[in-house]
Amino acid sequence: MKNLKMATLGNKKRTLVQAGTAVFGDRLVVIAGPCSVESEKQTIEAAIAVKEAGADMLRGGAFKPRTSPYAFQGLGLEGLKILRKASEITGLPTVTEVIDTRDVSWVAEYVDMLQIGARNMQNFSLLLEVGRQERPVLLKRGMYSTIEEWLNCAEYILSEGNPNVVLCERGIRTFERYTRNTLDLSAMVAARQLSHLPVIVDPTHATGRLSLIEPMSLAAIASGTDGLAVEVHPCPDEALCDGEQSMPPELFVRYMKNIRALQHAMESLP
Amino acid sequence: MKNLKMATLGNKKRTLVQAGTAVFGDRLVVIAGPCSVESEKQTIEAAIAVKEAGADMLRGGAFKPRTSPYAFQGLGLEGLKILRKASEITGLPTVTEVIDTRDVSWVAEYVDMLQIGARNMQNFSLLLEVGRQERPVLLKRGMYSTIEEWLNCAEYILSEGNPNVVLCERGIRTFERYTRNTLDLSAMVAARQLSHLPVIVDPTHATGRLSLIEPMSLAAIASGTDGLAVEVHPCPDEALCDGEQSMPPELFVRYMKNIRALQHAMESLP
Amino acid sequence: MKNLKMATLGNKKRTLVQAGTAVFGDRLVVIAGPCSVESEKQTIEAAIAVKEAGADMLRGGAFKPRTSPYAFQGLGLEGLKILRKASEITGLPTVTEVIDTRDVSWVAEYVDMLQIGARNMQNFSLLLEVGRQERPVLLKRGMYSTIEEWLNCAEYILSEGNPNVVLCERGIRTFERYTRNTLDLSAMVAARQLSHLPVIVDPTHATGRLSLIEPMSLAAIASGTDGLAVEVHPCPDEALCDGEQSMPPELFVRYMKNIRALQHAMESLP
Amino acid sequence: MKNLKMATLGNKKRTLVQAGTAVFGDRLVVIAGPCSVESEKQTIEAAIAVKEAGADMLRGGAFKPRTSPYAFQGLGLEGLKILRKASEITGLPTVTEVIDTRDVSWVAEYVDMLQIGARNMQNFSLLLEVGRQERPVLLKRGMYSTIEEWLNCAEYILSEGNPNVVLCERGIRTFERYTRNTLDLSAMVAARQLSHLPVIVDPTHATGRLSLIEPMSLAAIASGTDGLAVEVHPCPDEALCDGEQSMPPELFVRYMKNIRALQHAMESLP
Repeated sequence: MKNLKMATLGNKKRTLVQAGTAVFGDRLVVIAGPCSVESEKQTIEAAIAVKEAGADMLRGGAFKPRTSPYAFQGLGLEGLKILRKASEITGLPTVTEVIDTRDVSWVAEYVDMLQIGARNMQNFSLLLEVGRQERPVLLKRGMYSTIEEWLNCAEYILSEGNPNVVLCERGIRTFERYTRNTLDLSAMVAARQLSHLPVIVDPTHATGRLSLIEPMSLAAIASGTDGLAVEVHPCPDEALCDGEQSMPPELFVRYMKNIRALQHAMESLP
Repeated sequence: MKNLKMATLGNKKRTLVQAGTAVFGDRLVVIAGPCSVESEKQTIEAAIAVKEAGADMLRGGAFKPRTSPYAFQGLGLEGLKILRKASEITGLPTVTEVIDTRDVSWVAEYVDMLQIGARNMQNFSLLLEVGRQERPVLLKRGMYSTIEEWLNCAEYILSEGNPNVVLCERGIRTFERYTRNTLDLSAMVAARQLSHLPVIVDPTHATGRLSLIEPMSLAAIASGTDGLAVEVHPCPDEALCDGEQSMPPELFVRYMKNIRALQHAMESLP
Repeated sequence: MKNLKMATLGNKKRTLVQAGTAVFGDRLVVIAGPCSVESEKQTIEAAIAVKEAGADMLRGGAFKPRTSPYAFQGLGLEGLKILRKASEITGLPTVTEVIDTRDVSWVAEYVDMLQIGARNMQNFSLLLEVGRQERPVLLKRGMYSTIEEWLNCAEYILSEGNPNVVLCERGIRTFERYTRNTLDLSAMVAARQLSHLPVIVDPTHATGRLSLIEPMSLAAIASGTDGLAVEVHPCPDEALCDGEQSMPPELFVRYMKNIRALQHAMESLP
Repeated sequence: MKNLKMATLGNKKRTLVQAGTAVFGDRLVVIAGPCSVESEKQTIEAAIAVKEAGADMLRGGAFKPRTSPYAFQGLGLEGLKILRKASEITGLPTVTEVIDTRDVSWVAEYVDMLQIGARNMQNFSLLLEVGRQERPVLLKRGMYSTIEEWLNCAEYILSEGNPNVVLCERGIRTFERYTRNTLDLSAMVAARQLSHLPVIVDPTHATGRLSLIEPMSLAAIASGTDGLAVEVHPCPDEALCDGEQSMPPELFVRYMKNIRALQHAMESLP
């Protein structure tokens, strides 16, 4: 890293980032929920399922950045209202993606944490805007971004006065086609070594394959991740996006049991 | 490409895109100028130099997306006013990058064409916003983007009613470190085969090396590019950004002579 | 995978591969030792150190594929004799790389396992040759190779009659420059899901950074690797190759303690 | 490049490499022919067709490195005899790939030039072996290789006493899936700037698409390539490998007309 005076760098004292009842940087935080908020029924079912299985936070997209302009783009305000209702029912804090500088302030009223997605990692206007408000920010690594660029994007947010940034490794784009992206787990570890910010892992988008989500989650825990973000849908076959990589609730129950078992084993190691 | 009904696809009748006196899709258009507008003196000197050497259009950034928040971010409104003055003096039409949805409408009043940079290629809110105004748009390919994704981003603009999009290949990120990026010239050709939109090439950002700019420009012309965008600075050693890859005026004169020679030779081929 | 009749595919019954006293596919196998055999003193010191720390197998290169023809290329036959002596002293079985079809048969007499390096993964003549002899083979993934290509290279060996192949993920080449390569841990998991062959991980070459070797080793164990291959050198500062990423013996002792602790914790999970 | 004493570096005086009647480094050399020698009829038809269309050299594989061990691996010695017969009939010099150190000396008796394929670029034993014999060598760039590594592989050959090396850019592996590989034309230019060796381009393997071969060939000529290598098959639909990207003879006639027209135009430029 070139600029040693970056506020993002240095790992002597780890930062705790609080989003509602979830605290990143202390014990493992599990964020779960559907890729996008599609309906009240779908979202509340998902929220109850992930809460019962032991998740710490609810995710759900109201604004979806999609490759094609003709694909489902999210429910917008309606989606945010549904997400808030799901949060009230379950008590889970919420995180949602924001994609436009003009939406930051009002979207922030509906959720506990704002997400900057991979495609917008270097949307510097948006970074500055989330740096000027008070909600904590989940900053995903761009699929083409070096660790240095990623940390500099966090710096954009910190430089505007918001110290509550959580980094999220979600896979980079490589030549390998078996997985949707290539999970760069060493980047999570490196970011935690270089910075005091919490760093979590999104194995769903990184792998794009149900069979790889649990093994990669266990790997992330063993190498020190501060959290995991996974997609859960009450009925993956009917999902409007990412259905093929979303866990159904019954699978998520087993998943949570296994990752918590490793978490506890890790916490007992000398 | 998946969606054959995309307005962007089909290459039977090529689209002409007019930006002031420059017409993309007909004869080769050369865009030249400094990476960023740094001062009135620097910009006007650059404008006069590129005009005299035969360029068709002036480029210059007023909003610079930089890796670090502490790097020079551009002069903003002041830069746009300088750019307009340089245009008035030389008669060259202008193009500048816009990076925030809130800036689109007022920036459009100062220039002839709006540029969407590589880092914002999938900033869908911004694409929709430039799709709703009347200036033509120069859409750079993201350094991590497939041809399919790039064409879909053009579709975002066209779908909002603005048909005047020019695509720009500017290099993709690969493992090779000798060049700044890897110029994917076959993507320029492929985009022209798949779409009716003009496609130009930016050899400056793609290669990051002065010695490669002219050979890659000649290559682009021979394979059918609709234009070239290059950086020229009156004093590269003093440039606030990209100095090492900007051509000084005397080099640009020789460059223009050589690329026009090939252009004319190509136009004479049976 | 296209060809479901490949002998390499199918994971119903996992294959055990025996190399001297080491058995891959059962409990975690740790391979350790210097990048290259440089002298008798260096190799025997390394062998004793890794044996005492609990390693299962000794590695050491006698033929080094180097970028430049003028870099140290290994001691050849003399190196193999040293490796055999180190094996006799410590009781550790050995693995070494072979890079020429003409060397396969005689090199096989000095070691317990033959390694095909990343640069030779698609050296099909060499694959066929190691497929025609009886030593087990450690097949590293090419730094540019898809999982499908990797498994097909194993198939070349199996198709000649040698069923004893262990796969090794060692990082792929991507745009990220902070790490030497990008460890694709999901490829290890995917290869184990697709194939019955043991799959191990080489975190030394994958990351090229001492600080990442232990975290990535823990990650590999948590996600099910059959083994680890790491570089240990009695005096990394004096190493003729890869010194900056080799663990000194005292670090390796702590490393072994930590990875065995996780291994045992994993074995106790329900 | 690190080692300025490399014999490969320096471009003051360009090297001429003679392979039969073909001379690389002077005027454009066009190598054409089938991916693999499949039969006497197919190869001789192809040879006559490319000769009549104006090609300078005949290519054809007798040993094919294939992803799967069960794919067609080439005719071996029989293929070489056919290739020699085709050469005698047409007068075209020939180039064929060699993949095993043990084959170098006898294969060299059947052809005018030996090719090292992309997968074997860092098969250093093979490089040393072709460096010890007298035929000129066509050294393809590995699909994962930096320019620096490529030039170092040429150095392996030169260091053994064979100065007659021609480099061939054939596309690198990136995330882009529209093309088979990504043609890195700037690498051809850079290699010519760094080295005195001739550098040619293989647009067939680089793009994998018939529609891109001619535009990329024109681009290569305009940027200074010393030659082109393309696949031509008398009946692409029946080809045992690479049929979808091989030109049929009638297309090759038009191709040759167009590239020669540009070549002559380039030679007339001041």
